[in-house]
Amino acid sequence: MNWIDEVPWDKEGLITAIAQDAASGRILMVAWMNREALQQTAARKEAVYWSRSRNRLWHKGEESGHVQKVLEVRLDCDADAILLQVEQAGGIACHTGRESCFFRKLEDGRWVSTDPVLKDPKLIYGEK
Amino acid sequence: MNWIDEVPWDKEGLITAIAQDAASGRILMVAWMNREALQQTAARKEAVYWSRSRNRLWHKGEESGHVQKVLEVRLDCDADAILLQVEQAGGIACHTGRESCFFRKLEDGRWVSTDPVLKDPKLIYGEK
Repeated sequence: MNWIDEVPWDKEGLITAIAQDAASGRILMVAWMNREALQQTAARKEAVYWSRSRNRLWHKGEESGHVQKVLEVRLDCDADAILLQVEQAGGIACHTGRESCFFRKLEDGRWVSTDPVLKDPKLIYGEK
Repeated sequence: MNWIDEVPWDKEGLITAIAQDAASGRILMVAWMNREALQQTAARKEAVYWSRSRNRLWHKGEESGHVQKVLEVRLDCDADAILLQVEQAGGIACHTGRESCFFRKLEDGRWVSTDPVLKDPKLIYGEK
């Protein structure tokens, strides 16, 4: 069986994909992949996700330049997730200009933004 | 607004939850939480998930003893995921007896199990 057929795609043909910074171990983001996205990710060695909001393939960094070079692809036992070890261009994965999308931490019953904005999103994406 | 109401629950009332080993940085597993699971996780400081297969709350380690002490709870910007920093009891998160559920790595077009089984599942769960 082809490796891609062994992936337990959900009923919408998707799987959760997690990007982890290979150097720092930080979890950068969580997104979705369909079959085509995973195939392109493996072939290009750069992360390609499926954007559910835009309903199309999304080559991470296509607008921002913050591409993710993929060093390793892993699959879990049954919880239906892909784990990428990546080198994050620019050191910024989040559209808010932060290193990681997980910048809110639960502290005393509220979500507190603990991580700094490294670059103004307007400078990343241009004024819109 | 209550912190738990700020979580973008999906249409099934769930959110993806990732457990990361706080010491090693290794991603241990991915599971699901509903509102009650997240509330219990925050209150007990131990990971409680929602088991979709068993359709009930699942206090991780209830059978295996491999509980996850929760040191930190984070929420991402919009991709709808929770990230837990945990101390993994027994150093084993996976039901296969491995440290992590992500023990299969894509190598030359096939999934290769790269991580050792640390403890026979029969010894963890008993003969069934």
